[in-house]
This record gives sequence, C-alpha cells and structure tokens, in this order.
Amino acid sequence: MAKKGSKSRATAKGSKSRGDLALRELLRVPGGKPVDLAAYDARETPAGPRDKQTGLASMTDLATPLADLQERLWAASTAGDRRRILLVLQGMDTSGKGGTVKHVIGLFNPSGCRIQAFKAPTPKELEHPFLWRVKRALPNAGELGIFDRSHYEDVLIARVRELVEHAEIERRYDEINRFEKSLADDGVTVIKCFLHISYDEQRDRLLKRLDRPDKHWKFNVSDIDERALWPAYQRAYEIALERCSASHAPWYVIPADRKWYRNWAVSRLLLEHLSELDPRYPEADFDVSEARKRLLER
Amino acid sequence: MAKKGSKSRATAKGSKSRGDLALRELLRVPGGKPVDLAAYDARETPAGPRDKQTGLASMTDLATPLADLQERLWAASTAGDRRRILLVLQGMDTSGKGGTVKHVIGLFNPSGCRIQAFKAPTPKELEHPFLWRVKRALPNAGELGIFDRSHYEDVLIARVRELVEHAEIERRYDEINRFEKSLADDGVTVIKCFLHISYDEQRDRLLKRLDRPDKHWKFNVSDIDERALWPAYQRAYEIALERCSASHAPWYVIPADRKWYRNWAVSRLLLEHLSELDPRYPEADFDVSEARKRLLER
Repeated sequence: MAKKGSKSRATAKGSKSRGDLALRELLRVPGGKPVDLAAYDARETPAGPRDKQTGLASMTDLATPLADLQERLWAASTAGDRRRILLVLQGMDTSGKGGTVKHVIGLFNPSGCRIQAFKAPTPKELEHPFLWRVKRALPNAGELGIFDRSHYEDVLIARVRELVEHAEIERRYDEINRFEKSLADDGVTVIKCFLHISYDEQRDRLLKRLDRPDKHWKFNVSDIDERALWPAYQRAYEIALERCSASHAPWYVIPADRKWYRNWAVSRLLLEHLSELDPRYPEADFDVSEARKRLLER
Repeated sequence: MAKKGSKSRATAKGSKSRGDLALRELLRVPGGKPVDLAAYDARETPAGPRDKQTGLASMTDLATPLADLQERLWAASTAGDRRRILLVLQGMDTSGKGGTVKHVIGLFNPSGCRIQAFKAPTPKELEHPFLWRVKRALPNAGELGIFDRSHYEDVLIARVRELVEHAEIERRYDEINRFEKSLADDGVTVIKCFLHISYDEQRDRLLKRLDRPDKHWKFNVSDIDERALWPAYQRAYEIALERCSASHAPWYVIPADRKWYRNWAVSRLLLEHLSELDPRYPEADFDVSEARKRLLER
C-alpha cells in the first residue's frame, strides 16, 4: 500500500495501467518489518477507481468473474481438488467488517460461502485452546470461508485488555503462524485484511449510528470505552501485522475510510487470488454419449 | 396452487389484483387431504408476473424489501427476539434447489443466512436418530436458515429405496410433525417448498448438463437411475405433503418448470412471511445524548 507522501507510487503510472497493477503487491504488509499504521492514510484509494461512482460500477463488473471463479472452485472440489479460500476480516469497531461481508460476499453464490463471526469467547470456548473454535469454522474444499474477526482477537483485545499473561500472547503469534502455514500446506489460500479506518472516521460513524434510531441496535456503549484504547489497539495491530504477515498468509492493509474503496479492494484481492488458483471444471468421469442415450430412452 | 383445468382461479382476477393475492394461500397444500401431484401443472405461474422479463424485474424490486426485513429480524434478535425463518427446499434432481439458493438467498445479506445442504448421511450421522443432523443445523435467532434437502429425505429416498422398515417410515411422519411443531412454538417460521418439475423438464435439464462440458460435474449417472423411480418418488412426495403440511409448518407446491417463476414465488413467500412477522428495530437501551456527548469529547 502506498504510504503517506508516496502517493505518486499509486498514481504515477496513470489511469492506463491502474487495472494492471496487482493490488495485492501494493497492499501487502511485508512481514518481519516494523509496521507504523500512522504512516498509512485510511482515505487513500491505491490503484483504485477514480471516484465512488466509478468504484460502484467496477463492483458490478466484478460480480460475474467472481461468481464464475467461485463456481469453478466448487466444481473442482467435486473431483477432489481440496483448494479453498479463507478471508479474514479484522478492524476497529465500525471499520466495516459487516459491510464487507454484505457487499463483497454478497457478490458470491451464498451456498459456497461459510461465514463465521467471532464474538467474545463463550465459557465453553474458553475451556479449549484459543484456536479450537477457529479450526471448527474452517471452509471445506471448494468453499470461500469468511471470518468476521478471528483468532487475531486473541492477540489484539487479549493483549490490550491483558486478558492473558504476556508470555502467552507472545507464544500465540508463533502458534498462529504455524497454524496458518498448515492451512496453506493443506490448500487454503489465506487472505487477511485489516480494514484501516482513521480515528476521526470512527467518531463520525459512531455519531451517525446515534443519529439514526434504526442504527441504535448497532451501538454499544462499550464501543466508546474501546475507542479510548485506540493507541493500544493500533499498536497491537502493528505487532500482529509485523509478526504474522507471511508469504503464505499475508496481511493486507485496506484503507477503509471510503467504503466504496474498501469493498472494491477486497473484491479485487479475492479476484486476484482466485484467478491465480485458476480452478478448472472437472472432466466427465462417465460416458457422456451413453448417458445421453439412456436419457433419451425415457 | 391452481390445479390443471382450474387455471381460471389464478387468472380470472386479472392482472390488477395479481399483486394483492397472498401467494401462500394459493400455493399452500391443505394438510390431511390426499395430494395428486399429477393435477399440478409445473409450467403454471399462479399469481405471478406475466412473463420472464417481468419476473426478473420483479425479483430486482423484491431485493430491497427482503434485505430490509432481514436486517430488522436480525436487529430484533439482538434485543432478545428469538424469531427466525427456516426455508426447506425439496424437489427432484434438477428441480432447482441450488438455483433457488443462488438467486433467492443471494438477495439477502449472507451474514444472516445459515445454509445447509444435506447429502446422503455419513456413517456418523447414521449412528444418530434421523433428526439429529437437522437439529444441529437450525438457524439461530434472527437468522434465515435454508435447508437444501432436509429431514424429508428420510421419508422420501428412505421410502422409495426401502432404506428402513416401513413401520419406521410411518413413525417418522409423526416425529417430523412433532419436531416442526416444537420449532414453531420456539419462534421458527417454517416454510417448506416443494419445487415441482415435470418429467419432461427433468429430461431436458439433464440433457443440457450433458451438452455442456462446464456442467458435466453436476451430472451423476445415478440421477438416471433415480429418474427411473419417478412415479415412486412422486408418490412419496404426495404422502409427505399430505401428512406433514400443518398450519404451523405448511408445504407449498412451487411450479418450477419456469426458473424465473420458481425464484419469484419463493421470494414472494419469504416476503409475505417476513412482512407478517414485522420485526422491529429495538429501542436504544442506553442514553443516546450521553453517548453522543462522550463521543464528541474525544
């Protein structure tokens, strides 16, 4: 992703090559290096459509290729292809995890999507290792799995709120890396998106929820308390992005102050990964003309 | 649903009142009476749009009210409303269960949908009572649950293929009725749709799958064997519709030879049921102006 002050990186190539830019190269967090989220502008639109209207039109254009690739992924699984996608959505309150599911995942055939929202762990979940509930919600072969929050909460809120000992948090980064490596080895394309919004944008969005009685149900007073811990959360994200962005399971920072860009960017990332997988319809494992003959007999 | 020869029932009122007709009154199977599927015309379009083009446009119009009602159902659940929907899709091979999920459920926010496709029971599932796997897949409060096939397979293929003893099949109808009554008592609106296609239409659809290499993966040679048992399956459906269409969990016969009508009709049924539920956004359980004040402070 283009950092502040380096906007030219995204725009210098001009509109001509915009579509050719691999978005994932641009937004991927290089693992192992310190991450400074303050250097990322949440209002930017790297390699994106020029404005909201164009962005929405571009989303419409993405619907058909995405659905087509999804069907091919599913079809391939019926012939033993174990590949599948796991999209992990993380971000501060109001960053748009739910909106991304609605608008991006809404482009896909719902029967091939396995969506899991992770809330505060239940007493039963707390009896198990932190990855237990996550492992139970993984996509099957051919599916697109979506995590609305994820195992990263166990190094985010757990770190900020000191829910477990520090040594345990440190241990978890390694465990997450091993877990995600095993997923990748098993055919899971792991796409982790941090929906990056600014402090001011969060205030505006929370205020908007207060202004509309039909949005009050989305508001929790505890969101204000969490907001007070903004710097600690940003730091926790920086550490997670630095330590857990591997080539087989990269983190992407999605500028998310503009909803239309957020939706477009996540859709594009899915398209790029699905295109690379290039799943194929399986060949018939039966005699087609014999089947046709039998059908025409009755 | 209008029976053959009584087409006037659906059309006599003219196009003016078409939108006013409660589709569920028209398509509902009256329980306890013998059902003769041969008397139902699978190409009919009772109370439906006049043609395919109008039908597709009507689907587009349904998207917003459906999504709005779904959001209200979900919002209400956050304040303790336990109500939810269970849509059961049954029908012969190629009747369009998958297509209905794609096109109808695709209109909803995927995060509020819980879709379960039931295939031949696994050895583990067979160790349990037949309703076991179904009970594990029920929608939670506020959700729209969708069963692509269901516990009815246990009185359909199980009956036709004599997978269990006849006395056991007989027992299952009662057990299903008790189960669905308990669901209704617990706030589940159960909507059961039999996607009714004709014998000829099935042949055409199977042949089309053979004509297109990108559809071969959908074809199973066993579909031809099942097709040979068409009359036995129709009879098994008739018995299930007669014995298990209760006022709290009715069966609807959806003429499904025309895909656009099938999608429109299932969407309309969902709209009618959701409208009747009339879920409401919950009132704020916190001091809105106090929350606004706190937010503006930081």
